[in-house]
Amino acid sequence: MASVKPPYLGAAYYPEDWPLEQIDEDIALMKKAGMNVMRVGEFAWSRMEPEEGRFDFSWLHLAVDKLGKAGIATIMGTPTCTPPIWLVTKHPEVLVVGEDGVRQQHGARRHGCPNSPVYRDYCAQIVQVLAKEFGKDPNIIGWQIDNELYFSTPRGCCCPVCHQKFQQAMKARFGTIEALNAAWGMDLWSQTYQSFDQLPIPLSRTWHHPSLLTAWMVFQSDSYVDFCNHQADLLHKAVKQPVGTDMMPFSGVNYQHIHEKLDLVQYNHYHGMENFWENAFWCDFIRPLKPAPFWNTETATCWGGATTANGYKEPGFCRANSWLPLAMGGEANLYWLWRSHWSGQELMHGSVVTSAGRPMHIFDEVQEISRGFDAVREFLNGTRPIQTGVALHFSGFAWWLFEFQPLVHGFHYAASLMRQVYHPMIEVQLRPDVIDPASSLDGYRLLFSPFLPALDEAGLKDRLRAWIESGGVWVVGPMSDIRTMEATKFRHAPFGVLEDWAGIRCDYDIPGDPRQFSLQWSDSTPSEGSIWYHGLKTVDAEVLATYTEGPFEGLAAVTTKKLGKGRIIVLGTLPTPEDLKSVLLTIAQEAGVSPVADATGNLMVVPREGKAGKGMILVEMLNQTASITLREPVTDLLTGKTHSGMVDVPPYGVLVLKKA
Amino acid sequence: MASVKPPYLGAAYYPEDWPLEQIDEDIALMKKAGMNVMRVGEFAWSRMEPEEGRFDFSWLHLAVDKLGKAGIATIMGTPTCTPPIWLVTKHPEVLVVGEDGVRQQHGARRHGCPNSPVYRDYCAQIVQVLAKEFGKDPNIIGWQIDNELYFSTPRGCCCPVCHQKFQQAMKARFGTIEALNAAWGMDLWSQTYQSFDQLPIPLSRTWHHPSLLTAWMVFQSDSYVDFCNHQADLLHKAVKQPVGTDMMPFSGVNYQHIHEKLDLVQYNHYHGMENFWENAFWCDFIRPLKPAPFWNTETATCWGGATTANGYKEPGFCRANSWLPLAMGGEANLYWLWRSHWSGQELMHGSVVTSAGRPMHIFDEVQEISRGFDAVREFLNGTRPIQTGVALHFSGFAWWLFEFQPLVHGFHYAASLMRQVYHPMIEVQLRPDVIDPASSLDGYRLLFSPFLPALDEAGLKDRLRAWIESGGVWVVGPMSDIRTMEATKFRHAPFGVLEDWAGIRCDYDIPGDPRQFSLQWSDSTPSEGSIWYHGLKTVDAEVLATYTEGPFEGLAAVTTKKLGKGRIIVLGTLPTPEDLKSVLLTIAQEAGVSPVADATGNLMVVPREGKAGKGMILVEMLNQTASITLREPVTDLLTGKTHSGMVDVPPYGVLVLKKA
Amino acid sequence: MASVKPPYLGAAYYPEDWPLEQIDEDIALMKKAGMNVMRVGEFAWSRMEPEEGRFDFSWLHLAVDKLGKAGIATIMGTPTCTPPIWLVTKHPEVLVVGEDGVRQQHGARRHGCPNSPVYRDYCAQIVQVLAKEFGKDPNIIGWQIDNELYFSTPRGCCCPVCHQKFQQAMKARFGTIEALNAAWGMDLWSQTYQSFDQLPIPLSRTWHHPSLLTAWMVFQSDSYVDFCNHQADLLHKAVKQPVGTDMMPFSGVNYQHIHEKLDLVQYNHYHGMENFWENAFWCDFIRPLKPAPFWNTETATCWGGATTANGYKEPGFCRANSWLPLAMGGEANLYWLWRSHWSGQELMHGSVVTSAGRPMHIFDEVQEISRGFDAVREFLNGTRPIQTGVALHFSGFAWWLFEFQPLVHGFHYAASLMRQVYHPMIEVQLRPDVIDPASSLDGYRLLFSPFLPALDEAGLKDRLRAWIESGGVWVVGPMSDIRTMEATKFRHAPFGVLEDWAGIRCDYDIPGDPRQFSLQWSDSTPSEGSIWYHGLKTVDAEVLATYTEGPFEGLAAVTTKKLGKGRIIVLGTLPTPEDLKSVLLTIAQEAGVSPVADATGNLMVVPREGKAGKGMILVEMLNQTASITLREPVTDLLTGKTHSGMVDVPPYGVLVLKKA
Repeated sequence: MASVKPPYLGAAYYPEDWPLEQIDEDIALMKKAGMNVMRVGEFAWSRMEPEEGRFDFSWLHLAVDKLGKAGIATIMGTPTCTPPIWLVTKHPEVLVVGEDGVRQQHGARRHGCPNSPVYRDYCAQIVQVLAKEFGKDPNIIGWQIDNELYFSTPRGCCCPVCHQKFQQAMKARFGTIEALNAAWGMDLWSQTYQSFDQLPIPLSRTWHHPSLLTAWMVFQSDSYVDFCNHQADLLHKAVKQPVGTDMMPFSGVNYQHIHEKLDLVQYNHYHGMENFWENAFWCDFIRPLKPAPFWNTETATCWGGATTANGYKEPGFCRANSWLPLAMGGEANLYWLWRSHWSGQELMHGSVVTSAGRPMHIFDEVQEISRGFDAVREFLNGTRPIQTGVALHFSGFAWWLFEFQPLVHGFHYAASLMRQVYHPMIEVQLRPDVIDPASSLDGYRLLFSPFLPALDEAGLKDRLRAWIESGGVWVVGPMSDIRTMEATKFRHAPFGVLEDWAGIRCDYDIPGDPRQFSLQWSDSTPSEGSIWYHGLKTVDAEVLATYTEGPFEGLAAVTTKKLGKGRIIVLGTLPTPEDLKSVLLTIAQEAGVSPVADATGNLMVVPREGKAGKGMILVEMLNQTASITLREPVTDLLTGKTHSGMVDVPPYGVLVLKKA
Repeated sequence: MASVKPPYLGAAYYPEDWPLEQIDEDIALMKKAGMNVMRVGEFAWSRMEPEEGRFDFSWLHLAVDKLGKAGIATIMGTPTCTPPIWLVTKHPEVLVVGEDGVRQQHGARRHGCPNSPVYRDYCAQIVQVLAKEFGKDPNIIGWQIDNELYFSTPRGCCCPVCHQKFQQAMKARFGTIEALNAAWGMDLWSQTYQSFDQLPIPLSRTWHHPSLLTAWMVFQSDSYVDFCNHQADLLHKAVKQPVGTDMMPFSGVNYQHIHEKLDLVQYNHYHGMENFWENAFWCDFIRPLKPAPFWNTETATCWGGATTANGYKEPGFCRANSWLPLAMGGEANLYWLWRSHWSGQELMHGSVVTSAGRPMHIFDEVQEISRGFDAVREFLNGTRPIQTGVALHFSGFAWWLFEFQPLVHGFHYAASLMRQVYHPMIEVQLRPDVIDPASSLDGYRLLFSPFLPALDEAGLKDRLRAWIESGGVWVVGPMSDIRTMEATKFRHAPFGVLEDWAGIRCDYDIPGDPRQFSLQWSDSTPSEGSIWYHGLKTVDAEVLATYTEGPFEGLAAVTTKKLGKGRIIVLGTLPTPEDLKSVLLTIAQEAGVSPVADATGNLMVVPREGKAGKGMILVEMLNQTASITLREPVTDLLTGKTHSGMVDVPPYGVLVLKKA
Repeated sequence: MASVKPPYLGAAYYPEDWPLEQIDEDIALMKKAGMNVMRVGEFAWSRMEPEEGRFDFSWLHLAVDKLGKAGIATIMGTPTCTPPIWLVTKHPEVLVVGEDGVRQQHGARRHGCPNSPVYRDYCAQIVQVLAKEFGKDPNIIGWQIDNELYFSTPRGCCCPVCHQKFQQAMKARFGTIEALNAAWGMDLWSQTYQSFDQLPIPLSRTWHHPSLLTAWMVFQSDSYVDFCNHQADLLHKAVKQPVGTDMMPFSGVNYQHIHEKLDLVQYNHYHGMENFWENAFWCDFIRPLKPAPFWNTETATCWGGATTANGYKEPGFCRANSWLPLAMGGEANLYWLWRSHWSGQELMHGSVVTSAGRPMHIFDEVQEISRGFDAVREFLNGTRPIQTGVALHFSGFAWWLFEFQPLVHGFHYAASLMRQVYHPMIEVQLRPDVIDPASSLDGYRLLFSPFLPALDEAGLKDRLRAWIESGGVWVVGPMSDIRTMEATKFRHAPFGVLEDWAGIRCDYDIPGDPRQFSLQWSDSTPSEGSIWYHGLKTVDAEVLATYTEGPFEGLAAVTTKKLGKGRIIVLGTLPTPEDLKSVLLTIAQEAGVSPVADATGNLMVVPREGKAGKGMILVEMLNQTASITLREPVTDLLTGKTHSGMVDVPPYGVLVLKKA
């Protein structure tokens, strides 16, 4: 086939659900829509292997070949998300057991136990055969392992195999049961175990220990990572194309870990109009995970849904939604799905063409997007988003820790991180990488670690200290460095090392529920905190804000101290969004970091540079007019117009600006 | 006994729960209340058959005989709703299994599996013995099978017997498993079965296929119908009185099917003040089911309830509530219950006399109702409601289809049909029959089929086409003709035949969530649609309304086309209530159908005629004053007064008007 | 050790969860806080008996000894609330089964079946060994059995052992199954049993009979009482110190019954700012249970919580909260907990010092409380609250009866009793004992029995009649005397004896839902009732209020009648709070009972007298300024100031006033 180059625009295509003779009609419409890639295979196990050991790929070759001939590349998915009935009938033990101890039935998806050796063997078989069939096919540009490796029940799989593997994992981690008891404080309530085989599955009916619950969920995440690695190894042996796995925004399985053996990030998301900007958070999170540009493998054209359609989206949304990932470091945008299903659990989900093969109302907008992708191909492929030196910590371990220890009513880790921290940052055009604690800190000058309970994650503590001493500026808190990796408190102090590093002492904490407390910045501006209050005394630090009421009136709320060539700023409470913007801008300036633009907060501005030149991509995110004051003249590659000075961006508008 | 003639006024009577010597006191009070019928026996299996095979009807004969001597007829219920403990102890497998896979316990009701052969045998035994005992008793005027044959759990009975019968039913329907897979589209998610014995019970924990769920619920409905038929056959062999089964407003079991072998409809309802008019919908639905007048077998006098009383109702409500079913085609109104229970699960339910045998505050109103029934006996028995030529489709299959495929958030089939369609119709005094798709269309001139997804139900499609071509006017949509009988979409077009019949083409649909879209009628009146939007182009049709915004701006929202001697009006979206009234009145006029009265929307006007003359019954439904402009002079049989011209009807007032 | 005298100020202390070498640091802080008692041991079974039969108390002796040496007494808890893993691994049948039929897992607390003979044996063993170890220890001032003996699941334990014991209990109560069937009215719905072994566990999935449900819960309460008695007997044989069991405010287990074999009441509570006054209700309830002053064994210093902190409380709350129980008849106030947990299910709960051993913000307030306790020791120990002659009935049986028969929507027995009855009483400074129906009526002149469905409880009826005839004034209703002890209605009349005693006849009742009805007092003041309406006629009584609308317009709402030397006032509906205050004050005057003070409603005024003199303790309860007009000059023992006339009490203020 003719070589297909990024950016990729495409969709999920399920030829197994339709008459084969319909492929030509579909391809004609795909071409009309301007698509150059299709994602196939992910749920088609029963068509690939209708009976155990009998394989049939003829239909799939036909589809891939015809697509290829039409200049449409294929991303091939392994179908392991949906085991066929012959497998689950012969081996019902491969099905996931829920948090109530009851096993799932055939008929859904994502219901295979990640630890089941039987299931693993069958998965290995189909993956190897599939890889052999298509590993050398020039139409294939990438592989997708399984589909959306999240937990199908709130506590992952609670089957006997998982139970035993968890006990083994704990034995491997602690060595002796005494060490586990000591680490988790199991003398409390006589919870002490005598041997690892006494560790229960923490089912939902019993009020379990948060350390047990956290360890169980981390183990479940590890299990899915291991399940993915297994296929990644098999694929890497057999295929040359890049291998990934399409993941929804963080929902339990550790993103950092699962991508270690993968070649690129495949990202599915279904943001709506009301929280569209959260998409930017996830793009900022997945971009730094891998050197390769990520693929946005799934998003809705006009609405999501299952047997109910999830709400109409206004014109322009599809445009902004399709461009944002590309602007922020991706090179592919695929819709879910090409043609609406004609039956089944998701038949009301929006698509590009209807079940009857008629273009949906969004079709024209998709064509416009395709023309745009074509117009900027060289610039997109020849530039990458600039790393600005700002990073924000986001931790999968913190997610689980706060799930079982919210600390204060109304606190939801990811929601608070996105809405109360990330959103103010991007509103003032700070352009952060959102990084896992395991990530290297090289290249960053300003790092923000709010709600990061465990500094011991992935050896962060030592790397962090060294990074600060060599000049890094670290903004930390509230609720950071307050837990061990065993989800317990420290016993020597409220923090692990923070008092020592930051020259402070925290006498006590007060929850920000049911009310907030006022404070005053060092310039006498009155304000208030939120969520949580560490009452701080300075031992060897400077006070930036002081509480002005409550038991801790007069204690410090925000402090700062130089450490080596760097600096630590401790937030004893979370400032208001306006205060946080102001504080961060001040600190950024000191850290030598600047906002990427002088623009309104609803505008995503992504500076890019590379062999294809310099420029920036603008995407409006709130369906409102935005404006930016350009620092130098640019040309919009989409329209050919040149711009300078103050420029308005229309609602959901996209501009790809290249410097002269 | 002296012959008892309709209309019947009475109550449910449970002599098994009280000392036998109390019967005389009860009968004296019943006579004082003016009652002439009691419903007995429905839960008394353990008193009829205290041990397996040992029967005792002496107490029941005593009650029936004493009632009869007092001129009170009896409706006899089979007691199969409440199996005795000796049965469930010996055969726990007869108890229903819930959607979580857990079996019910003894101590409730409606918990016998309709498919259990063991349970069926015991039911046959008690029914036959009971029928033999009372089949020739002149005091018995009718039989009631079981009680309220609805599902006791959300997915009916999920026991192994039901499972196997379901598999057999699917085999009988499809012949081969390949045919089932093809019909339901089971290649999706590798759901394909290899044999019928792999079909699962669709328990609630797993996200099952909507075609499977729909088929399961239809099978459950069929199971209850079959359970009822079994008893109907036995009773018809042994008794001469009419046989029915008392049913609550549609709750899953198909009304049309279950009444095929029955002689009349027995209808239970518990409408309150706020939704009293919905009672009219159900009366319009059950009246056309059988030639015989229906019996309103249960309703509350003053409040419903279980262990909590369900709210006081204002004076007059009982009057309106008791008269409405009689006005609309019934000949019996029985309260639940005669004397409040002194113990048990429903001891707070309202009644006619208290547990202590004291008249409740409603007693005087019951006496007034009784006097009224007496006063109009001849007119009521000698007339029937006039069939006006208007019909509205209501489908049990649609109910289940939308249960598992709501299509759009907030859409509830029966609620929307009643509130957004039926209510506007009766407010402009269109007097419809509410009919099942299986019903004959003979005699109707105007038929409205909103939200009727499957035109293939009961061979409707061919009958409908013929009916239209011979002059019928069919108003259809939105969301009609959009699904096969397998709960899947059509693949060739968004509709089955509607595009062809109506001369339109639907490019795409948009859900009416989260917002509505504006449209404009052909006379330039601006308005808006709701719920759902089909974007229509006319191929060979006339446009009645056009969308004025959104992606489908300029497309047709409502179209019309002549077909043979008839006409099709397609509603691409549901108009506002005011628009719907206006559209329907216009169309009705063209169809030669008129409103039955010039009256306010809170007044139910039921024209009646027959050998006893002509006239109409008026019932006020909203506890507000109503008014009607009479077309000719009439006499109110309740007061003897003559009326003409504009007449006010007081809140909850009832007038029985006979033409001179 | 130096003898420790009440009042006791202390906390729960868990040396098993911390390094032993930390004890000295903790004790130093306890002394600094001014504490003189610690509560230990309650959850430490696995430390006391790490393996079956191997005991280790060395660590506990160390703690008790060191505390003792520091002048801090110890309350020793039996650790049976938390069975060790070796027990539940060997005997999983000791774990509680929930209302869904599923057994609990190891890892929580309160999950041992109270009826399990195996569990009982192991409990006996550890209790006896512990009693032997510490029974003669001079540092121990009291024993606590287990911890918070409430049900860990909504229906207690539903295991096979409980099932069988319940059947035995019913056999013991009824003798024959026919008697049970007759008493519960089981002919209804063919629920009749043939033998006691057919009685089911009333699991939550089935709609069970309210008499069965009520009997089951009373049996569960009896089971916990029996479980407690078992340990009480063992302890009384082995130790000389007083024995109690710490209970939360009523949550199912009968307070009256469980305290029969105990020496004093141990009371845990966690009231917040919004419902702090409810604490007074519980103090008024537990004070009359035993002659000995009660111990407030648990309360939060600053917030409760588990893995989430339950909200900050304002300064002063801890003061008022700590003093109130002492004012009202207690002699101990212990916080939960001394040092915040560093791990586990409750690690966010407030405390006195943090996990890191740092004083919380509340520490100063605790010190102030300690100084206050010291200052008033002689007065407190030498006086007791005066019994004023007023009593209010509160019944555990009523709790369960209304749980399964709420009668009217929105009615919650304890909440209505506290908010709509008790609160108005204390606002007008009536100072009631809240008494169980089993309590003696000696010494009371005015008794209020609202919502007391069963007068047959504990032989109350005869005692009550005699008490009235000898001069008592009884205010009763609404919803009193309406049920048998079998949770059924009476059949001869709506009330058991009330019509006869009060010279009235109740024709019918109407629920106070969805609206209220108006009434008029005999002085023509218009008002309205609430909750429930008995429509009364007087046979031989005087009318105090009359309904002025609804079906019962003109019937009596409140009546009065002399009976012997006493009087009965029947409330046919619950008056408004203002009316209730007015009615009660009038009746109180007639009964020779007076408000204890002329003070605002937010002030708790507790008159006390004894060998140490006379006086009163004042506690402000709503964080608002209160005022009182003193009848004679007094000295505040906390400040040494003398007061007379009108005195303001600051928000959450406490005054201990002794007459000169």
